[in-house]
Amino acid sequence: MKKIELFKEHGFKELTFSNYLAHESEYMKVINFNFKAGQQLPVHAHELEGELTIAVLEGEGEFLASDGATMPAEPGDVLVSAISEPHGVRATTDMRVLVTIAPPI
Amino acid sequence: MKKIELFKEHGFKELTFSNYLAHESEYMKVINFNFKAGQQLPVHAHELEGELTIAVLEGEGEFLASDGATMPAEPGDVLVSAISEPHGVRATTDMRVLVTIAPPI
Repeated sequence: MKKIELFKEHGFKELTFSNYLAHESEYMKVINFNFKAGQQLPVHAHELEGELTIAVLEGEGEFLASDGATMPAEPGDVLVSAISEPHGVRATTDMRVLVTIAPPI
Repeated sequence: MKKIELFKEHGFKELTFSNYLAHESEYMKVINFNFKAGQQLPVHAHELEGELTIAVLEGEGEFLASDGATMPAEPGDVLVSAISEPHGVRATTDMRVLVTIAPPI
């Protein structure tokens, strides 16, 4: 058992989004991405089995999907996606999200 | 791909904590627990393979562990636990947490 204090342990970067591997095991990978306003994790996908969730912890932006589709992303919003589906995040304010990938890639 | 708006879709209950199954698949189970101040998910464990995370989305309380151990739980804090380890949550203010279990139980 371990506790991770993401808001204390992980900040923001000026040039690009900042990612912090909070946990990795045989069961899952947990990554905290922080975005300054305007930064983004571009739409991407991996041809692998499994799913991921993107949970908004703080700030606002958009979830990105294939063909330029977007969905508003606010605290408490969770995107569930196959790892093989195109997905991404764009921040309109400073924004922190928690990404969980199972099984880990 | 689907988006779940936890803060809109799931509220609080007066008598006990409220849980909402946000997502279930062969890869993971995602549950949102909401606690009114003073409510708790008592310490428990399951003799199963796998891990869970408890991420605080809103509010404050404590993560609970074996032998009465507690850890402060604030927004952005994530507890990682084996499913077989005793774990729980107690709220000191109204509190929303996101629980992810992989593989799903």
